[in-house]
Amino acid sequence: MVDLTPAPQDKGEISSYLQSLPLFSGIEKSLIMSFADQAISKKYETGESLFFQDDPIESFYVILSGWVKLYRTTQDGNDSVFDMLTVSQLCGETAILDGDDYSFSATVVEDIVCLKIPASILNTAIKDDSKMAYAMLKTISRYRKQQTREIESLTLQNASQRIGCYLLRLCRIDVLEPVVLQLPYDKSMIAARLGMRPETFSRALKKLKQQTDIHIEGDIVKVPTIESLSVFSCSACSNEYPCNDLMT
Amino acid sequence: MVDLTPAPQDKGEISSYLQSLPLFSGIEKSLIMSFADQAISKKYETGESLFFQDDPIESFYVILSGWVKLYRTTQDGNDSVFDMLTVSQLCGETAILDGDDYSFSATVVEDIVCLKIPASILNTAIKDDSKMAYAMLKTISRYRKQQTREIESLTLQNASQRIGCYLLRLCRIDVLEPVVLQLPYDKSMIAARLGMRPETFSRALKKLKQQTDIHIEGDIVKVPTIESLSVFSCSACSNEYPCNDLMT
Repeated sequence: MVDLTPAPQDKGEISSYLQSLPLFSGIEKSLIMSFADQAISKKYETGESLFFQDDPIESFYVILSGWVKLYRTTQDGNDSVFDMLTVSQLCGETAILDGDDYSFSATVVEDIVCLKIPASILNTAIKDDSKMAYAMLKTISRYRKQQTREIESLTLQNASQRIGCYLLRLCRIDVLEPVVLQLPYDKSMIAARLGMRPETFSRALKKLKQQTDIHIEGDIVKVPTIESLSVFSCSACSNEYPCNDLMT
Repeated sequence: MVDLTPAPQDKGEISSYLQSLPLFSGIEKSLIMSFADQAISKKYETGESLFFQDDPIESFYVILSGWVKLYRTTQDGNDSVFDMLTVSQLCGETAILDGDDYSFSATVVEDIVCLKIPASILNTAIKDDSKMAYAMLKTISRYRKQQTREIESLTLQNASQRIGCYLLRLCRIDVLEPVVLQLPYDKSMIAARLGMRPETFSRALKKLKQQTDIHIEGDIVKVPTIESLSVFSCSACSNEYPCNDLMT
């Protein structure tokens, strides 16, 4: 399932790739080239960690394939998974604003290929280059908006609605119904991402299947009509489907 | 209870006040003065709104006294209160990064005095002045960290632990025990801020009183020992009390 896309081969390719990401949109080519010059292509397997909470900040990562979970660990040993990152997303790039140490851990949940770039170069760029600082502001602002929605969802949607919302976000809106999609990672990981115990997740998924027309077999989900799923899930949300405001 | 501190009287006073806020730390005095020049002192009473979700963005606010709730309204009419702001906090300053319209509403829950400043001046400053952009980055990064903790709390702490956590944050750690504190606003608003229905809040508060040594009468809370409350609340959190990392 994991697309082990080969990482870009040379610095020119890496530079062009970086330029296509929102964080580097509108940034001088020479500055992007200095990021590309220091980028290293890496592969990490499921279970490996990019960094742990409280490690000193050294790098940030551009994910080219696979999935990474971001989490914090509580004093009694549970993990709070607060984000899952995949293709063309950055990991750890905002950590430099928090201090000297990562304030969360990042562990691979589906084998990844990524670019590893020293955090120091980004740190300097956002201080010296107002366009870079502005692009970083837009990036972190988008995260914040997503988190505001997450808090809303945790307080006002029930567990079945939250699973429905998760599935809706996986649906591409430009394909014909029925939409058939593959869950991107293990169900237990989806439960963790949604902040549910596995048994709560199972019960809520059963209820979701009863109350909408979706079918799930293994990791394949069939959504006959988006509307049935969105009517059920989005009533307790401040947004109509699709959540266009989270795309900007 | 509300401290209706008179707003600063002249532009020099306003400028000095702004300079004391993290967003203006290290910013050129002439730039701060241009903010002060356009700031207007305003009072709003409980129930009045500074702006509503989807209104065009015009201003941001510096709160000098009182409390404001930030919330989004779901399609079925419930509010998700995702933040409460008070003295020396800014309201709506990050909205300019989201687009042309406010992505949330702001309503007064305890009479406020504030400075109202045109958003356009901040928008220009963060694009042109890399120090201003960096200060804004630090501000929004702090919000994001708080929200990450909020998501963690919503997924891993039970309702009683969440109330305990809320009370712990009201405690000043430099005072002698027992700590006596006044709830800053109505209990129903605290319940809303914690994402609980009133009946859940009442049950959870009762359990918290049974399991720790706190006493509550009206809006006065007595915490005989911080440790009893923090042992109960912080075990399901990734931080020990006090949450120093949220202060930076």
